[in-house]
Amino acid sequence: MKSWGRLITAMVTPFNEKLEVNYEQAVELANRLVAEGTTALVVSGTTGEGPTLTAEEKENLFCKIKENISVPVIAGIGTNSTASTIENAKRALACGVDGLLIVAPYYNKPDQDSLFEHFRVVAEAVEIPIMLYNVPGRTGCNIGPETIERLSKIENIVALKEASGNIIQLSEAVKRTPDDFLVYTGEDVLTLPSLSVGAYGVVSVASHVVGSRMKEMINSFLRGNTERATEIHFQLLDIFNGLFVVTNPIPVKAALNMMGIRVGDLRMPLTAAKPSIKAEIQRHMRKLDLV
Amino acid sequence: MKSWGRLITAMVTPFNEKLEVNYEQAVELANRLVAEGTTALVVSGTTGEGPTLTAEEKENLFCKIKENISVPVIAGIGTNSTASTIENAKRALACGVDGLLIVAPYYNKPDQDSLFEHFRVVAEAVEIPIMLYNVPGRTGCNIGPETIERLSKIENIVALKEASGNIIQLSEAVKRTPDDFLVYTGEDVLTLPSLSVGAYGVVSVASHVVGSRMKEMINSFLRGNTERATEIHFQLLDIFNGLFVVTNPIPVKAALNMMGIRVGDLRMPLTAAKPSIKAEIQRHMRKLDLV
Amino acid sequence: MKSWGRLITAMVTPFNEKLEVNYEQAVELANRLVAEGTTALVVSGTTGEGPTLTAEEKENLFCKIKENISVPVIAGIGTNSTASTIENAKRALACGVDGLLIVAPYYNKPDQDSLFEHFRVVAEAVEIPIMLYNVPGRTGCNIGPETIERLSKIENIVALKEASGNIIQLSEAVKRTPDDFLVYTGEDVLTLPSLSVGAYGVVSVASHVVGSRMKEMINSFLRGNTERATEIHFQLLDIFNGLFVVTNPIPVKAALNMMGIRVGDLRMPLTAAKPSIKAEIQRHMRKLDLV
Amino acid sequence: MKSWGRLITAMVTPFNEKLEVNYEQAVELANRLVAEGTTALVVSGTTGEGPTLTAEEKENLFCKIKENISVPVIAGIGTNSTASTIENAKRALACGVDGLLIVAPYYNKPDQDSLFEHFRVVAEAVEIPIMLYNVPGRTGCNIGPETIERLSKIENIVALKEASGNIIQLSEAVKRTPDDFLVYTGEDVLTLPSLSVGAYGVVSVASHVVGSRMKEMINSFLRGNTERATEIHFQLLDIFNGLFVVTNPIPVKAALNMMGIRVGDLRMPLTAAKPSIKAEIQRHMRKLDLV
Repeated sequence: MKSWGRLITAMVTPFNEKLEVNYEQAVELANRLVAEGTTALVVSGTTGEGPTLTAEEKENLFCKIKENISVPVIAGIGTNSTASTIENAKRALACGVDGLLIVAPYYNKPDQDSLFEHFRVVAEAVEIPIMLYNVPGRTGCNIGPETIERLSKIENIVALKEASGNIIQLSEAVKRTPDDFLVYTGEDVLTLPSLSVGAYGVVSVASHVVGSRMKEMINSFLRGNTERATEIHFQLLDIFNGLFVVTNPIPVKAALNMMGIRVGDLRMPLTAAKPSIKAEIQRHMRKLDLV
Repeated sequence: MKSWGRLITAMVTPFNEKLEVNYEQAVELANRLVAEGTTALVVSGTTGEGPTLTAEEKENLFCKIKENISVPVIAGIGTNSTASTIENAKRALACGVDGLLIVAPYYNKPDQDSLFEHFRVVAEAVEIPIMLYNVPGRTGCNIGPETIERLSKIENIVALKEASGNIIQLSEAVKRTPDDFLVYTGEDVLTLPSLSVGAYGVVSVASHVVGSRMKEMINSFLRGNTERATEIHFQLLDIFNGLFVVTNPIPVKAALNMMGIRVGDLRMPLTAAKPSIKAEIQRHMRKLDLV
Repeated sequence: MKSWGRLITAMVTPFNEKLEVNYEQAVELANRLVAEGTTALVVSGTTGEGPTLTAEEKENLFCKIKENISVPVIAGIGTNSTASTIENAKRALACGVDGLLIVAPYYNKPDQDSLFEHFRVVAEAVEIPIMLYNVPGRTGCNIGPETIERLSKIENIVALKEASGNIIQLSEAVKRTPDDFLVYTGEDVLTLPSLSVGAYGVVSVASHVVGSRMKEMINSFLRGNTERATEIHFQLLDIFNGLFVVTNPIPVKAALNMMGIRVGDLRMPLTAAKPSIKAEIQRHMRKLDLV
Repeated sequence: MKSWGRLITAMVTPFNEKLEVNYEQAVELANRLVAEGTTALVVSGTTGEGPTLTAEEKENLFCKIKENISVPVIAGIGTNSTASTIENAKRALACGVDGLLIVAPYYNKPDQDSLFEHFRVVAEAVEIPIMLYNVPGRTGCNIGPETIERLSKIENIVALKEASGNIIQLSEAVKRTPDDFLVYTGEDVLTLPSLSVGAYGVVSVASHVVGSRMKEMINSFLRGNTERATEIHFQLLDIFNGLFVVTNPIPVKAALNMMGIRVGDLRMPLTAAKPSIKAEIQRHMRKLDLV
């Protein structure tokens, strides 16, 4: 799935003042991200507040974005029920999306064999490329390297978003999977470390605000200019950390609103950034001349 | 909510061979549990495989159990969306359930203020007693003692199921809340330690198989016969641990099936216990003459 | 080793203004502790700043305390070298101490078999009762229940101080060892929970300031007055936590100095409590009329 | 301290069959390591079984190695007592070593201010370059980025060995310290990720067996050939992990013995690798044609 590129953005879902999905703004934001270097979009992922979107809203989002955007669209559709994941997958397919992001079941904690079966059964139910998503800090379960290895042999399981924070595990996943199976880090701050041990790219949140610099950082690294890459890493380190100082996507929505890109507040149980958090983010943004 | 008693069972949901809900068996199991000492039932909780039940199935379950059982019925209806939690709560209310068990939002990780707002808004939307449920190992977020204190002042938030494994935090919650706010441990193996630092009772899984012994253990403790209570604790220690050797409710369903109580297999992404796990559970059951 | 009783105090080492050991004050403090209910004394443990006492100072302390006190004296002599642990043990023996407290080797992280060998070899080198000490938060290694079981079969290994915070592991240790092998919790706040699942007593820090209340708490529990025990637990909960709000023994030394018991400051790398910490401790002490 | 180079080896201490230090073999090993690309040697660090060497043995080792080797010699002399650390430092200085490796105090858990004071006082007591050593998995305490920043302003504190496993913290340390303050990772497997976010080099264990390949990996990265660097990383990934499958230095001593470099067994409380561990290491070594 090299067509997905190296800088995928997990896009926020813009809301209007009534906290309804603002589809127009979503399309505008998506185009803006692509202009800044985003190579594919995850829609309705964690950053897109997938948990508080209705099935209809998700479907509308997938369709609207897909119709209006040139880069691949990856639909975030995983749940903690295999049956409902398949159902969601089929709805997304109807919009012609290019791929699915499927998170490990959260809360009910399947073991490794059950994880394998879950992903296998979903993959067999749809004919579309799938990116696995490992984020134990949210799900309470880890997809181990051996399970990744087994899953990578299924034809339409083509990629992994690894957000365990464990870079050795990420590297193990790269080692154990075929060359055309692509491992992305799900953590902006680990982009360079991950590339250095075999990751293909990043599924990013920070690219909402520093997309072109992240692109340059990645490209510098790939062209062998590691010094320049590291230099950009240090320029971005504070904003990378600042965007996760409280639960994502609270900070990134605040940052976008500051930049005049009206993505609105968050749906409950999440709530907009407090003044102290906003001030901290603003400080980092100012240093980068973003506000 | 002293009417809920000290030994609440978080009931499994029986399935038939097609993995459809077996309502008849559910009612039979519920009655059996009550006969063994269960003082209230949590229906469609984590142990009840809530994540893979449809809204209709849950509603049917709540209604069927409520109609056929004498003890209070507490409906597990929490999700990680405030709006859908309220919707679920209202459906459960229609069945006349006696209370709601509402878990902290999983996966999207609200902070403490957002947690407070989530529970407050849900509590205000329904007129029914609510038990909070803290289980950070599954949700990725912890409801801190200060948030519990604030929530305990809301009239219909009456109890807490504390399953963080942190007995000091449990004791803090007892200390910071009014006398009629009841704290239950959500971990069988911590029943006695929790009682000793102020818990009122336990929301139990093990009571499916050793209900009457747990009742005796709790009662011995309350009557001041701590030696007898500890003695029973040691008799049950292996089965307490054995029922959580893999993700609950995999072991307890295996145990019930062994005892001839046909609760069936599990819905994906969970899968039935492997032979080695079954053998281990059976060994513990045999020592207690349960099989 | 029931002669060690249920309320062992891990005693601080008083220093004078030059940070020399104040032996006189040590004897005075020891007598005071016994008067308040302490049943045995650990000298030169973690709380006694063992790491910054010289071999000579330890020996002097053991001898001075032993000569002047009626209750058993347990010498803290463990290091992360088997050879030096044996050497220290022999020096302590020369003072006629009643037992040894031997911590798991810190920093170099022996595995379970190596832990067993370490304790076995030390135990065979001396003819004196030994209490094992498990404190993984400090040592970086945990003595597992199976290793405790194996060690409990060695004649002069007679007790365990369990400070892992894991009450299930503590209970497992009780279950797997003979009746005359005594398990103590090393955490004041877990005294009642530990007693409820089989612990014999506590190796305490808080007994420096609330010894008689802890004694009453323990005795109430043992006599079956669990309500009274829990009531005292809640009275002491803040001071239990306050004494560990920063690294022990910083707070307890501050608390003793506040009470007019001049135990002095700490030796580097530890340093005396900051004003904010002192103020917090003082607040808890005032509520208990201790200052 | 660029003269220390990028590939520092934390050297094992060879023992003879009586578990006495084999100084001759130590010198031979040191020379062999330098021939393979090691740019400086840590003597009597964790890998060198510092905890079980006597003061005399350490001094002899420092002197013998210093006399016979061309690269800088860094003496591992930290303890959990400030006074004894200074004493050890002075003994090492007498041998003319080139620097000191000073670990954060283990076991007694100083807070950040106390850590600062500890290192400051030691640094002021000696005129020699100092490398700080952060390894919270062993010490139970973490030297935070802010403390590193403060310490980096002390003239003879010139480097950090960061072995927390937290690559973001490592990168923060680089960002907050002057350009001539050098940050080394203490984890072989994180060499490339660390270089990518600003580390200068590695304090290595694996360089005992794959020194020249590590050198090539590091140099490839620095020259911009990141592909080649990553390729070597994957060749070495199994041996990097294999050398830490049980507590270091158990596996590396086994590996060296397999290669015919007689470094002997370990002093208690550590014990030689079990057959199953040896077999696993051997398998990894064979793939690299090392045995």
